[in-house]
Amino acid sequence: PDWEIVEVDGEEQLKRTFKLKNFAQAQAFTNRVGDLAEEVDHHPVIVLEYGKVTVHWWSHEIHGLHKNDFIMAARTDEAFNA
Amino acid sequence: PDWEIVEVDGEEQLKRTFKLKNFAQAQAFTNRVGDLAEEVDHHPVIVLEYGKVTVHWWSHEIHGLHKNDFIMAARTDEAFNA
Repeated sequence: PDWEIVEVDGEEQLKRTFKLKNFAQAQAFTNRVGDLAEEVDHHPVIVLEYGKVTVHWWSHEIHGLHKNDFIMAARTDEAFNA
Repeated sequence: PDWEIVEVDGEEQLKRTFKLKNFAQAQAFTNRVGDLAEEVDHHPVIVLEYGKVTVHWWSHEIHGLHKNDFIMAARTDEAFNA
C-alpha cells in the first residue's frame, strides 16, 4: 500500500509501511531514511521490526502536514526503490 | 522510567523508552539494539524518533514473554549505558 494520511493525537501524518526481506534489510532502510532526515533536519518516526519499516512524516511545528512532508515521503520511496 | 509490561494485541511485551540527545544519537542507539538482535536472532520492535527510542521485546512464537526477552531488555540497558 502507498502512503496514507492518518490522524495521531489529533495531528495528521503521512504513514507508509515498507516490506523488507528480513531484519537486517529493514535496519539498513531505517538508516537510509534516517540519513535523509538528518540531511534536511526534518525527522520522521520510524518503526523498525522484522521485515518491515513503517515511516510517519508530519510537521510537529504546525501539528500536521506541510509540503515538506510530501516531499520527504517521495524521497523515502526513492530510497526504498533505489 | 524503566521497563514496563504492556499488552499489545493481546500479547504481553516489555517496553522501555530511552531518551537521547538528538536524532543522530537515537539512530545510533537503534543500530546498537538492532545489532544485538541480529546476534541472537531475536528481534524487537524499535521506534526511532527525534531524541527518543522505544524498544519492545516479546516472543512472537509464544505470543508473550519468555526469559529471553528479559535478558534482551537487560542487554538493551547495557547498550544504552555503555
